[in-house]
Amino acid sequence: RCHHPVAEMLDLPFPPFCVFLGGLGFMCVAFVSAWCQYWRGGFAWDGSAQTFNWHPVLMVTGMVVLYGAAALVYRLPPAWSGPKLPWKVLHGALALAAFFLAVLGLAAVFRFHNDHGTPNMYSLHSWLGLVTVLLFSCQWLAGFSTFLLPWAPASLRALYKPIHVFFGSTVLLLSVASCISGINEKLFFSLKNGTTEYKRLPPEAVFANTLGLLILLFAVLVLGALARPSWKRPDADSPESHQ
Amino acid sequence: RCHHPVAEMLDLPFPPFCVFLGGLGFMCVAFVSAWCQYWRGGFAWDGSAQTFNWHPVLMVTGMVVLYGAAALVYRLPPAWSGPKLPWKVLHGALALAAFFLAVLGLAAVFRFHNDHGTPNMYSLHSWLGLVTVLLFSCQWLAGFSTFLLPWAPASLRALYKPIHVFFGSTVLLLSVASCISGINEKLFFSLKNGTTEYKRLPPEAVFANTLGLLILLFAVLVLGALARPSWKRPDADSPESHQ
Repeated sequence: RCHHPVAEMLDLPFPPFCVFLGGLGFMCVAFVSAWCQYWRGGFAWDGSAQTFNWHPVLMVTGMVVLYGAAALVYRLPPAWSGPKLPWKVLHGALALAAFFLAVLGLAAVFRFHNDHGTPNMYSLHSWLGLVTVLLFSCQWLAGFSTFLLPWAPASLRALYKPIHVFFGSTVLLLSVASCISGINEKLFFSLKNGTTEYKRLPPEAVFANTLGLLILLFAVLVLGALARPSWKRPDADSPESHQ
Repeated sequence: RCHHPVAEMLDLPFPPFCVFLGGLGFMCVAFVSAWCQYWRGGFAWDGSAQTFNWHPVLMVTGMVVLYGAAALVYRLPPAWSGPKLPWKVLHGALALAAFFLAVLGLAAVFRFHNDHGTPNMYSLHSWLGLVTVLLFSCQWLAGFSTFLLPWAPASLRALYKPIHVFFGSTVLLLSVASCISGINEKLFFSLKNGTTEYKRLPPEAVFANTLGLLILLFAVLVLGALARPSWKRPDADSPESHQ
């Protein structure tokens, strides 16, 4: 039964999957950048609508693509042997880079709102997005304090690890729901008049809807890869892994 | 260390969690019904805006709350011993009920759009929602054919089970992203003029945003419960469980 084609497909090793996922992540960043550049007027940091355009690009790049890369570090086969510390540092560094992009992305939208007299934090998208980034910052701080500071007791590491893993997936789920609601909201704002109305499904709407589905596919594949038992570090729960 | 308060909290047995989750699910249904009844004019099936109001209520009740209940059936301790068939039937029946509510919920929005000359299927919310329901229907049919039809070979059951489990969580994730984007979109549609503008955060906006966060919390807890090793049926992967 090992040679059943479906079983073989399920036995896919991590590296080719990772290459595919990298391509998909690159497409997410390329799509969101192309949307903002081609249909929404490009980028600036002067409080104009072009300032806003940094928001979707930075949030998708940070909270979805870089975040997903950080989450999957321990699934790379080279991370399975040898000292764990360099991989922990890489995991934390990628997550920190994701966090900085997210903070810049929030700064872009707050600056745009404030310069236009638009209130902040009223939509469900904004509530959810802020919850996501706040949860992520707690997750990063708790992870750093527990797994990277050398004086953290092993018992605390063992206790916190399943919580860290659970909230890791949760933050990605919240990121995706934030991205989907944000893209949907932006299209309703931008395409409301004349011949480009959202409901007439102009090319921009098809393109940005497709971006939403790509982001979703990327995140579902990351969550699936995280949950897959055979891709987990074999000694994940042994004492020596709590280095 | 077993008596550490955090460790004890993590050792929570499933039944009290389930009672809490049931209360949360009830609140989700109550909140979405109250929103549509109190702020959106109540319910009807005549093609008016009251017809649309069935859409959020039926989708949240079906694709989130009933779907979550169906997903957790095998976590109930009584399902761990004795014949598995009655629990499979319950799992399939709850999922089928969820599917019927979802189809009715889709009928409500299509009827409302058609009677008002509004195009269907243009927003990211609608694309994502349709993908979710289509994936769910494939999931139900494949699950029924593989796990309930007595002549399905055990090898096929063993092969399909991890796929069924993965797509089970995926459909819930897609449902949540659909609900969040739908609530966000509906508030932008409904609260666009006068003193009730969404951006002024009137009571309706606070209420419906809170509904969105409740739905999200419910789904995250369901996904967490599904992933928790100690709540899984102990013989989940033994041959006799593929009854």
